[in-house]
Amino acid sequence: MRKRILLFAAALLASAGAHAQTIHSPNHRLALTFALTPAGEPSYQLSYGSKPVIKPSRLGVLLRGGAGMEQGFVVAGVDSSAHDDTWTPVWGEVKSIRNHYQELAVTLRQPQQQNRALVLRFRVFDDGLGFRYEWPRQQQLAYFVVSEERTEFNLPADHKAFWIPGDYDSNEYRYTTSRLSAINTLPIKQLEMRAAPYTVQTPLMLKADDGLYINIHEAGLENYSAMFLNVDTKTFGLRSQLVPDAMGNMAYLQTPDHTPWRTVVVADNAPAVLASKLILNLNEPSRIADTGWIKPQKFVGVWWLMQVGKASWNYADSTNLKLATTDWSKLKPNGRHGATTARVKQYIDFAAAHHIEGVLVEGWNVGWEDWVGNWKEDVFDFVTPYPDFAVDELRDYAAAKGVHLIMHHETSGSATNYERRQEDAYRFMQEHGYPAVKTGYVGKIIPRGEHHDGQWMVRHYARAARLTAASRLMIDMHEPVRPTGLHRTYPNWLASEAARGNEFNAFSEGNLPEHETILPFTRLMGGPMDYTPGIFKIKLDDYGPQEKGRQVHTTLAKQLALYVTMYSPLQMAADLPENYEPHLDAFKFIEDVPVDWDDTRIVAAEPGDYLTIARQAKGRDEWYLGSITDENARQQSVKLDFLRPGQRYEATIYADGKGADWEKNPTSYRISKQQVTNKSTLKLRLAPGGGAAVSIKPVGGK
Amino acid sequence: MRKRILLFAAALLASAGAHAQTIHSPNHRLALTFALTPAGEPSYQLSYGSKPVIKPSRLGVLLRGGAGMEQGFVVAGVDSSAHDDTWTPVWGEVKSIRNHYQELAVTLRQPQQQNRALVLRFRVFDDGLGFRYEWPRQQQLAYFVVSEERTEFNLPADHKAFWIPGDYDSNEYRYTTSRLSAINTLPIKQLEMRAAPYTVQTPLMLKADDGLYINIHEAGLENYSAMFLNVDTKTFGLRSQLVPDAMGNMAYLQTPDHTPWRTVVVADNAPAVLASKLILNLNEPSRIADTGWIKPQKFVGVWWLMQVGKASWNYADSTNLKLATTDWSKLKPNGRHGATTARVKQYIDFAAAHHIEGVLVEGWNVGWEDWVGNWKEDVFDFVTPYPDFAVDELRDYAAAKGVHLIMHHETSGSATNYERRQEDAYRFMQEHGYPAVKTGYVGKIIPRGEHHDGQWMVRHYARAARLTAASRLMIDMHEPVRPTGLHRTYPNWLASEAARGNEFNAFSEGNLPEHETILPFTRLMGGPMDYTPGIFKIKLDDYGPQEKGRQVHTTLAKQLALYVTMYSPLQMAADLPENYEPHLDAFKFIEDVPVDWDDTRIVAAEPGDYLTIARQAKGRDEWYLGSITDENARQQSVKLDFLRPGQRYEATIYADGKGADWEKNPTSYRISKQQVTNKSTLKLRLAPGGGAAVSIKPVGGK
Repeated sequence: MRKRILLFAAALLASAGAHAQTIHSPNHRLALTFALTPAGEPSYQLSYGSKPVIKPSRLGVLLRGGAGMEQGFVVAGVDSSAHDDTWTPVWGEVKSIRNHYQELAVTLRQPQQQNRALVLRFRVFDDGLGFRYEWPRQQQLAYFVVSEERTEFNLPADHKAFWIPGDYDSNEYRYTTSRLSAINTLPIKQLEMRAAPYTVQTPLMLKADDGLYINIHEAGLENYSAMFLNVDTKTFGLRSQLVPDAMGNMAYLQTPDHTPWRTVVVADNAPAVLASKLILNLNEPSRIADTGWIKPQKFVGVWWLMQVGKASWNYADSTNLKLATTDWSKLKPNGRHGATTARVKQYIDFAAAHHIEGVLVEGWNVGWEDWVGNWKEDVFDFVTPYPDFAVDELRDYAAAKGVHLIMHHETSGSATNYERRQEDAYRFMQEHGYPAVKTGYVGKIIPRGEHHDGQWMVRHYARAARLTAASRLMIDMHEPVRPTGLHRTYPNWLASEAARGNEFNAFSEGNLPEHETILPFTRLMGGPMDYTPGIFKIKLDDYGPQEKGRQVHTTLAKQLALYVTMYSPLQMAADLPENYEPHLDAFKFIEDVPVDWDDTRIVAAEPGDYLTIARQAKGRDEWYLGSITDENARQQSVKLDFLRPGQRYEATIYADGKGADWEKNPTSYRISKQQVTNKSTLKLRLAPGGGAAVSIKPVGGK
Repeated sequence: MRKRILLFAAALLASAGAHAQTIHSPNHRLALTFALTPAGEPSYQLSYGSKPVIKPSRLGVLLRGGAGMEQGFVVAGVDSSAHDDTWTPVWGEVKSIRNHYQELAVTLRQPQQQNRALVLRFRVFDDGLGFRYEWPRQQQLAYFVVSEERTEFNLPADHKAFWIPGDYDSNEYRYTTSRLSAINTLPIKQLEMRAAPYTVQTPLMLKADDGLYINIHEAGLENYSAMFLNVDTKTFGLRSQLVPDAMGNMAYLQTPDHTPWRTVVVADNAPAVLASKLILNLNEPSRIADTGWIKPQKFVGVWWLMQVGKASWNYADSTNLKLATTDWSKLKPNGRHGATTARVKQYIDFAAAHHIEGVLVEGWNVGWEDWVGNWKEDVFDFVTPYPDFAVDELRDYAAAKGVHLIMHHETSGSATNYERRQEDAYRFMQEHGYPAVKTGYVGKIIPRGEHHDGQWMVRHYARAARLTAASRLMIDMHEPVRPTGLHRTYPNWLASEAARGNEFNAFSEGNLPEHETILPFTRLMGGPMDYTPGIFKIKLDDYGPQEKGRQVHTTLAKQLALYVTMYSPLQMAADLPENYEPHLDAFKFIEDVPVDWDDTRIVAAEPGDYLTIARQAKGRDEWYLGSITDENARQQSVKLDFLRPGQRYEATIYADGKGADWEKNPTSYRISKQQVTNKSTLKLRLAPGGGAAVSIKPVGGK
């Protein structure tokens, strides 16, 4: 389907100056124009119909110890082609995905630099633009170090932005909503290592006054540092800011090589942004041949207990222990250890009774007494259980109940230590019946001077995905770089955290009621999040003085809705079994809701305000609907026209109850049932900070 | 044997100010005095009889992000004890080693810093002083970061010094001999990353005008960065300068913890410095329980061929290859590849014919096309042979001849890559019959920002020693930090390079004729060196234009003498078999000379001038003698009074021949035999840059 339409010799074009090339999206709404400035600087612009999306913006990459690749270029070749095919994800929101774009590949050369070549490849889809820098294999350039990338996204106006500050090591911030001109990261409390002021993270969600919704991110970040955006609050120009390593370098590359795709999703309505598959399309197909062992799943876990301070990850209260020399059996147990054999059996029992596939256990392995804050290299060995955790007994107990345990590997940011022990740790998992692992990277990275979002760690995460795949293990990463669609390439990489999860309600001022209406437009653009919804005991004061005044900032019904609105193939039912037991009627929705889908409809959406999504269960004529709102009560009408015509369904509606309010009365909920068809319209009332969840199952014959 | 003689309460001593403690060496020649200054600064001084060795010098360690531990101390306890025992090394220069010292342990506390504790432990031997900083386990201090160590060695006069510049990544310098006042590292060509000017490496050899020989180094460097010495050329004060990591930090410690021992060997004659076992005594005993598989050995290797440019490590001349995606079988062989099956068989044949145990093969594995200079992480995989290297066939061929292959793991400085693949690589060795490995760390270290001599790499080397030991493998490290006696603790760690080896004669301006008379007083103080002696084809011009004017800077006879004067349990016969064949009479010495000894006598020595050593073969009544000189011809008389009385011996003398001269006539040698007894005196004539080697074997009955 490739069609070469233009190929000029470099000599012909050397004098062309602003020689421009334009391609359009398949539906012709989007137009991408590439040009060189008179100084030979590459630039591009993007428009949506008559509306400018990106004004002329320069492109370029600076190299350490040599001339940059940002000017002095001539066009040596232009290649345009069309692409249209459809592929099937291993799991996801929809059964199949169309990959339909027009491509423009501009080969640039630098006559003053031994004619070094750089290819700029643009792909224009109906839902946006992707482009990247590619360095072909060439004599003039083999190994090189990127010192800076100068990709601009010059915006035409002072859009509304949903942003978190650029932090080399953390995405776990509340979102701020402001005009571009009002972005200021300085007043925001720093969590880890802050980038330059006025630098924000991607995915950056923007809303223009002319009605366009624009999302800027990247795709396929596997061998480069993450891209932040430095904001010029006067001109509304954004410029790429990469994450440096200890030497201040941004990436070490070897030709042939390329940057990740820089992505600009554009739509004239918010739901279309959430429906975009542009980022997945720009990622490479699965590198795992046999994916039959990859199973989307729900899980419970020995976890929230620790978040609310009712149990500890650590077995003893001793500190200053050394992994190599401590005799863990001699430590005095603190009596609050969460991961005991007896407790895990309770969780297994609960999971088995409610068709939950997995049981995560955190704090099962030695090292938690000294796990964080010391920049210590040898923290965990990943294979030694605490004395009160009977790993073989639990494997057998779980297996007998048809449940599996989910492994936990907290690295404490010590990636070097994890890399040394990774293969042993995965062997241990295989031997003890763990098909999946949750990893964690809390704290400062070792190698010291590297960052969570730098190239070295980006490669580490991808390697972890490959190593687990080689052992037929699934992986869920906490505190990695935010995702960029690599779950297409590594479908065993089920989910990541890389944002501010539900847990923050347990140990901080919490998340704002609007938080979950923004995440799908930001963090989730790159891939599934392990957000850990399903907290039923909303007010946390009972857990003890440390939780005084804390609560989850939603209603209980909204917690249910999140299983639909926050797509992930890995969903936790995060609360304690004892908190579910009094509400098994509500828990039925969690029990029922799938984690893999044949279809998805974004019914209504506005970032920061509300979101309603309907999804069809994988391989079944069942639909599930989630609707959430921010701090404002709303009514939401949902036309069920996606249902199969002629079929009657029973809708079970898990709604906010009388007087429900996230703050004043969060656990008031009401469950009702009604018969519906594809002609029906559901009317949902969402309380302040509330939501609704609906399951829709066929009744009778076809 | 411990005797607590003094223990004061801190309160009593707080006002003691310069309260001093003195201990003496067992022979009472050396006196060590500890004192606190009025500001609570620890200080020490050392004298030899009436001669000052170290004038009052301060001690202290600064911590990152907190008050330092260099002042504000009070003495909380003083503990003195004597120690005397004898231990047996797994291999070495002597059969048994006496560890005899007086110890002073001063417990200091900082009342202004929550009474934090620091112990200064001094051990005074007849041959010198060792001391270190120890941090006991304490509530007030668990994890801490050393930002600077302020250990002073204030010398009383402008001693003569044998020094190389401080370089965080290399010891491969020629030695400069100068007064302390004339030390200036700036004019010396930088090899890798230079420390501050006027900083020199240890072991630093000093000679005082009053006749004392002083050697400053360290012992037991396993979890700290290497210590360099910053020289004040006016006051002759030396101060510790540690090697920083990417963050500028020197070490990350956790109590209980300690620095390596800082060592000062002192003697009134040069041979006594070489006979000192102080550094070994300060290291910990072997951590390897069963050492029966550890075998000192000689080896030949496919190596010098590449050093002189007659063959290549790389199989193809392609460059810019990627380890993961290159099909090595498709590369076009360059026809100069050294490590071919046929050539290795020749080396095996030669080794078998001459009772050489090992055959090292470099360039056997894929990756050498792009191995250095690119700061590339994934260079080698350590398990994939080039297409022309038949690993199984060679294993069987060698085994049939009673020879084994020695593995080669060049890491190209990419320690992270090596760590990921290390266990697979050692498994490969076990499966293919390699009992020993030579590692290499050429180039800039990855993790980027770490240095060869920093704490992270220091730990890496020790880990490599432990991992190989766990697989019952011996190890020889090239380009590591210089040794500090850890071969006592890890006797499978046979040797290291970490200095300017014989190889420099092949690819640079070469080593000075005095080089090998200095190395035993400097680099070898810490442990054996893989110097690769035994080059018989001294003039290298024949190898091609790249070797024009190059030569080994010794006579042939001196190459033989090095097998005795440069102690190592691992000795290469470094030249090509074809260069040995015409001189098998001389090669007989290499064939005969042991690599493990029951006794060693330093007959005569002066750093920079000459060195004569006699050693008794392990378990045999045979002696071997090596005598070398610098650029000056010398006569050397050797009384053979170490021979067993009443036994007649045949001495075979491999001496410089008529007109021999390292530069003009290096290959003139003469082999003679004479009968000797313990009453005999051998008279050896050493040519300029020459030497002599002697084997002494019993004749007749006892």
